[in-house]
Amino acid sequence: MEDILAGLRALMASHSPPLDALVVPSEDYHQSEYVSARDKRREFVSGFTGSAGLALITMNEARLWTDGRYFLQAKQELSHQWMLMRMGEDPAVDIWMADNLPEDAAIGIDPWCISIDTAKKWELAFVLKGQKLVQTPTNLVDEVWKNRPPVEINPVNIHPLKFSGRSVADKLKDLREKLIREKACGIIITALDEVAWLYNIRGSDVSYCPVVHAYAIVTSNSAFFYVDKRKVSSEVNLHLEKNGIEVREYSAVSSDVSLLASHQLKRGKSELIGNGTTEAEENNYDLIWADPGSCCYALYTKLDSGKVFLQQSPLALAKALKNPAELEGLKKAHIRDGAAVVQYLVWLDKQVQEIYGASGYFLDGEGVKKKKHSETEKLTEVTASDKLESFRASKEHFRGLSFPTISSVGPNAAIIHYSPHAETCAEFNPDSIYLFDSGAQYLDGTTDITRTVHFGKPSAHEKACYTAVLKGHIALGNAQFPNGTNGHALDILARVPLWKYGLDYRHGPHLISFRPHARNVPLQASMTVTDEPGYYEDGNFGIRLENVLIVNEADTKYNFGDKGYLSFEHITWAPYQGKLIDFDLLTREDLSWLNAYHSKCRDILAPYLDESEKAWLKKATEPVSV
Amino acid sequence: MEDILAGLRALMASHSPPLDALVVPSEDYHQSEYVSARDKRREFVSGFTGSAGLALITMNEARLWTDGRYFLQAKQELSHQWMLMRMGEDPAVDIWMADNLPEDAAIGIDPWCISIDTAKKWELAFVLKGQKLVQTPTNLVDEVWKNRPPVEINPVNIHPLKFSGRSVADKLKDLREKLIREKACGIIITALDEVAWLYNIRGSDVSYCPVVHAYAIVTSNSAFFYVDKRKVSSEVNLHLEKNGIEVREYSAVSSDVSLLASHQLKRGKSELIGNGTTEAEENNYDLIWADPGSCCYALYTKLDSGKVFLQQSPLALAKALKNPAELEGLKKAHIRDGAAVVQYLVWLDKQVQEIYGASGYFLDGEGVKKKKHSETEKLTEVTASDKLESFRASKEHFRGLSFPTISSVGPNAAIIHYSPHAETCAEFNPDSIYLFDSGAQYLDGTTDITRTVHFGKPSAHEKACYTAVLKGHIALGNAQFPNGTNGHALDILARVPLWKYGLDYRHGPHLISFRPHARNVPLQASMTVTDEPGYYEDGNFGIRLENVLIVNEADTKYNFGDKGYLSFEHITWAPYQGKLIDFDLLTREDLSWLNAYHSKCRDILAPYLDESEKAWLKKATEPVSV
Repeated sequence: MEDILAGLRALMASHSPPLDALVVPSEDYHQSEYVSARDKRREFVSGFTGSAGLALITMNEARLWTDGRYFLQAKQELSHQWMLMRMGEDPAVDIWMADNLPEDAAIGIDPWCISIDTAKKWELAFVLKGQKLVQTPTNLVDEVWKNRPPVEINPVNIHPLKFSGRSVADKLKDLREKLIREKACGIIITALDEVAWLYNIRGSDVSYCPVVHAYAIVTSNSAFFYVDKRKVSSEVNLHLEKNGIEVREYSAVSSDVSLLASHQLKRGKSELIGNGTTEAEENNYDLIWADPGSCCYALYTKLDSGKVFLQQSPLALAKALKNPAELEGLKKAHIRDGAAVVQYLVWLDKQVQEIYGASGYFLDGEGVKKKKHSETEKLTEVTASDKLESFRASKEHFRGLSFPTISSVGPNAAIIHYSPHAETCAEFNPDSIYLFDSGAQYLDGTTDITRTVHFGKPSAHEKACYTAVLKGHIALGNAQFPNGTNGHALDILARVPLWKYGLDYRHGPHLISFRPHARNVPLQASMTVTDEPGYYEDGNFGIRLENVLIVNEADTKYNFGDKGYLSFEHITWAPYQGKLIDFDLLTREDLSWLNAYHSKCRDILAPYLDESEKAWLKKATEPVSV
Repeated sequence: MEDILAGLRALMASHSPPLDALVVPSEDYHQSEYVSARDKRREFVSGFTGSAGLALITMNEARLWTDGRYFLQAKQELSHQWMLMRMGEDPAVDIWMADNLPEDAAIGIDPWCISIDTAKKWELAFVLKGQKLVQTPTNLVDEVWKNRPPVEINPVNIHPLKFSGRSVADKLKDLREKLIREKACGIIITALDEVAWLYNIRGSDVSYCPVVHAYAIVTSNSAFFYVDKRKVSSEVNLHLEKNGIEVREYSAVSSDVSLLASHQLKRGKSELIGNGTTEAEENNYDLIWADPGSCCYALYTKLDSGKVFLQQSPLALAKALKNPAELEGLKKAHIRDGAAVVQYLVWLDKQVQEIYGASGYFLDGEGVKKKKHSETEKLTEVTASDKLESFRASKEHFRGLSFPTISSVGPNAAIIHYSPHAETCAEFNPDSIYLFDSGAQYLDGTTDITRTVHFGKPSAHEKACYTAVLKGHIALGNAQFPNGTNGHALDILARVPLWKYGLDYRHGPHLISFRPHARNVPLQASMTVTDEPGYYEDGNFGIRLENVLIVNEADTKYNFGDKGYLSFEHITWAPYQGKLIDFDLLTREDLSWLNAYHSKCRDILAPYLDESEKAWLKKATEPVSV
């Protein structure tokens, strides 16, 4: 690790101009939160493996900024060379740099790894001190990274219309109408999920995300797809060609953006268009649309700043509003996924009883603790979550996990984004809470569920905390609210039941759209959100309950202000463990909701379960008298 | 009215430089929301009587900006010469001026009527267009105001220590410590309530506010009180002198601020200090503290901008945190006030039955409508509220109302800040909802309560709406939350029950501190707030329920994050009308709270009621089975 910092400092010193500091963000060239192994530069330099964080290296120190989800984990993973900077407690990185780096300092950054918004904000913070943000011509981390994982050539796949629900032609038509409305002649699309959505393609370049490393440029009469051409089969090429999309090399995006800026970007072959796709007429506008939150600074600096239309990409909202086919697919995927979770719980229940003599999922007792068991039958966080993955993998349309499974026993559950490793992870303990937060990519939809269970005798404190979290989870899911309400404003509904006991949790607003880009948009019908309150007690245990919800138009008795009202529909199906609920703390409304949810759970999952699993689920979803 | 605008336009044209626009804000020279008759300049020019609004006069048009509380009222009161600008819907006044006034326009303002913050914000909005904010040397409105009310000489009174709970010497000592902490040599205090609080004095210069038109300047070793000296008796003079406070003429503040800026502001007579009050040593700092939200731009421009410390006045928070004597007084004042409200309800119940044949407060029936009644016995919004005032006036320590009583029948209740006038107000109608929102100044505390009642047969819709508002009122009052929570974040708790039915209300966050200056401060123990959700249906009816709450430290089972948790204590006492409640919609928790509140109401008010009033209250607070 010391070699890495030394190597970087040597490069910083020999840079022209010499750099006083080097920033290494987590993001790749597309501002992705989850990046490929090859792009984990921040992890490589700092050793911190969390998904969010930023490293700053000066000539004599190294600091890492990360958020509340990762304070514990970063503390464990960072070496003594690194100082942890807590977001929300310590000064933000730009403020810190402005206040602590020398006047006129040169601060290096790979301009492909920083968004327009962030770069501009930093430059503003630096200007009073005469400090400068310097764009390095290469990524200095790559130069010192000896065993950097190689480029992988993963094929691009076509995402079938029956799952996407809308044709590429339709999506391009919509997009071009939006360009005209904003007087733009073209748009640069850099977010990987937006490129995949627009062109109805999928890939596997990034773990847990079915995306391809690619850019897109769309103008009024042309469309380009920048990708390693080795990934594109002739079939995929045909799919793209039919839609008037020209495939170009990944690296060509840089020079093509320059051509776009001077209105010289032209299609290579005019015969591309055909099969009924009419070529759009060229419009006469000269603005170029770039999303300041997702587009990198490197591409922005190739544009004439007076001719850039900086606004959130229209694809972010378009993608967040699921069409009927997508909603249908999502619901189906969640039913299969729920069945896998129930199968996992049944299997786990049996294992902990057999291996550890636990009392199990249903019995609220001490169990007959088995003191010894062989290493081979040992149940760990990782062996358990592997089993969970296998249940999911047996389901139709499974394409992989949607994020690293959080499978955490006891104190590990208090680490909000804990990720167990086979060599170091904890063993099951029937006296401890077990939390698992996981999900999968299916062709028809992405899932994300968290349940917290106990196979022994939970303490009264654990039950009180679980019940408070459940009450928050129910209160939020049952909310109705007028159009125009931001998800953040509803956040408090999930906290109030915890606050009653003097409890709280540190992760941010949980009521967020699936895709980070749509965060600032008010909730609208056909969006999906997650409802995931929690409670975390450092060193003891953690509790979280998470369902995916669809936003629907609500059928309210009145419609004050003619705004239209919205409500949520749960589409995640798996039981809440009765043993962890202190039913005296639930209101009649809470209980009615719980009974109705459990009853639906039983009905909806039955077709995917065998007889013994069905019997287990029946017991787990037994109604409670209101 | 046309004469006024013509007169102003003539003055604008002959001004040097000629003015393209003139701004007439509601505020007086102290940025007060409620101002004396003599200071109602915005009302005089526009005819709009609401407490908040801003008039803009150009050579060919006149516009009035006001907020959602006043849209209906402004529409009724403004003449055809005026255009209503809806805050929150139309562009803000500074944006509108920048976009619509000519380039290089001169925009006139009396710099005593605009805060530092607002003036700076406007100048920033104007700069790109080359527009200028021009300070008029006199107030142009005063020059055209022929029958402007004369200056009133109301005596300054000493506020006794048993009510204030802290001596002036104590408060000055605290303030001077804060000056040193911020490296300030002095502070300019312009908010009328802050001057009154600091010097423990009261007055009656502004209707509904027990304040004196005065400024204060405090330095490390001197203190000044700028006031019309005719208001200061020798006794009050002695009270001030004993505390080292020198009385100067109101108009001297202007030149004294200039002296303060150049460190030449000195006490007139050194013998002022005595009676054990030690003279504070002069500190060596050179910053001058001014509250950018309450201090006028006129005084700010006399200071060296590099030597001004712009931050909320420390008195705003100090005053918001009530000391034990103040809390004690507040609670007592609210009990006497609650008794007056109950006496009013008893009287009203009898009147509407006798005069109109209404079924009354308790019976949910049609009543025997009396078709005719003499003009003399007619019950109107104003005759009723006069009676309410007389009940309050009979109580110990009464000093006047705390704001114009809102006494509103039927559709008038939908006008959120409706204020009835004797000549035009509505008559009682036993088929309509009646809403009254009122309060009083007592020597030991200020009250503010709203109740909504029906003396006939409310519709199912009215009951559903009343119940939803009550549920919001209860939910907010029962909240517990960690230290650091802003009142605004809790706002949604009062709305969620309304949203369930597709209902909402337009007034802003109701959970606000009594004094506007402290709005941005998180809730802290010993603050007071109001809990006042409502529902307003234009043309039909309005519902609001309002109690004053004290913020207390909460006794939670846990204390996650060691933040400390807070809860509310209701200190307002008056029943909620059972006839308007749909009990099926209340949870067990709602019902338990209601029963406990009603039971306490009965016990606490009994000593102030006669036998028949007690019997009425017993019936009105009968417990409901949970």
